[in-house]
Amino acid sequence: MRELRERILKEGQNLGNGILKVDGFVNHQVDPGLMDACGKEFARRFASVGATKVLTAEISGIAPALTTALHLGLPVVYARKTKPITMPDQVYLTLAPSHTKGRTVELIISPEFLAHDEKVLIIDDFLASGATILGLVRLAEAAGSHVVGVGALIEKSFEGGRAALQTLGVPIESLACIVAMEGDSIRFLEK
Amino acid sequence: MRELRERILKEGQNLGNGILKVDGFVNHQVDPGLMDACGKEFARRFASVGATKVLTAEISGIAPALTTALHLGLPVVYARKTKPITMPDQVYLTLAPSHTKGRTVELIISPEFLAHDEKVLIIDDFLASGATILGLVRLAEAAGSHVVGVGALIEKSFEGGRAALQTLGVPIESLACIVAMEGDSIRFLEK
Repeated sequence: MRELRERILKEGQNLGNGILKVDGFVNHQVDPGLMDACGKEFARRFASVGATKVLTAEISGIAPALTTALHLGLPVVYARKTKPITMPDQVYLTLAPSHTKGRTVELIISPEFLAHDEKVLIIDDFLASGATILGLVRLAEAAGSHVVGVGALIEKSFEGGRAALQTLGVPIESLACIVAMEGDSIRFLEK
Repeated sequence: MRELRERILKEGQNLGNGILKVDGFVNHQVDPGLMDACGKEFARRFASVGATKVLTAEISGIAPALTTALHLGLPVVYARKTKPITMPDQVYLTLAPSHTKGRTVELIISPEFLAHDEKVLIIDDFLASGATILGLVRLAEAAGSHVVGVGALIEKSFEGGRAALQTLGVPIESLACIVAMEGDSIRFLEK
């Protein structure tokens, strides 16, 4: 998506070690108009997968997942990283290593909001190693649901996430696919 | 807002100790259509305050703040509760006691995204004791910004937050104001 690629080129910062800082429009300050445009584009690309629910992980996945769900007319569930007191004792929980946090995080979903036979569209901000998204896949499968698609705002193709998700056999879409970051140069796969 | 009150009556659960569970449409699963309607209503109520930025706290404030900002055409900043590696060393940080978490949480904003003389509209999911919102007010003031309005999806008027915020002298709006919760009975201030 040209609009997103241009914004990354204008404001994204390569902090080294594969970390792309996009705190000005995705991860701390959010541009709602851009998120809405991204949600609309995801809704278009996943229009035919028959999703019944959008799934993401708090925190930074919430904005793009919400706008995607809005355009698809579906509810969105965000996996929690700490169990709130409102959640029942029996939950779906999995562990996922977080590259940007430098530690393993818990991903937790209440069985109240993920049922058998749901068709789950996973949306997140980044597709890097795929570890977080694979965690969401495990939660969906534990609930007896089926993943029908995976979308990420920004893919870093050199971290191998797409290959890790390929066995799911579902469409994987990213709106800006970065093939290389070197110093101030960020190179995209044009599409 | 009638739509929100009706949804609380239908799906909200009083867990005791002043805890209202709305995990089915606000805090774990989110209803994007309802959030969009709430954002539109906040945008209408705060149309004349001259806000230049919407401010909220992760995690549950993000959805209503995003839709409000979308309808107002403004950026939204969410205060982080842990400092990500993408944030500079020098930050605005304050502590706020969290009733639902049973502990004090940090609220952190990067100076990159809150400037002098911004006019800040604070949007959150709940207005209970007002502790989180007062934390956001302190961060805004530390940055030299001015709070011009406070909006919450759900107010629990019996926890005193509105009184705690009154000295700000700005409009305070809630879309569903609960005056009493006893057992299965949830009573609203009609408006």
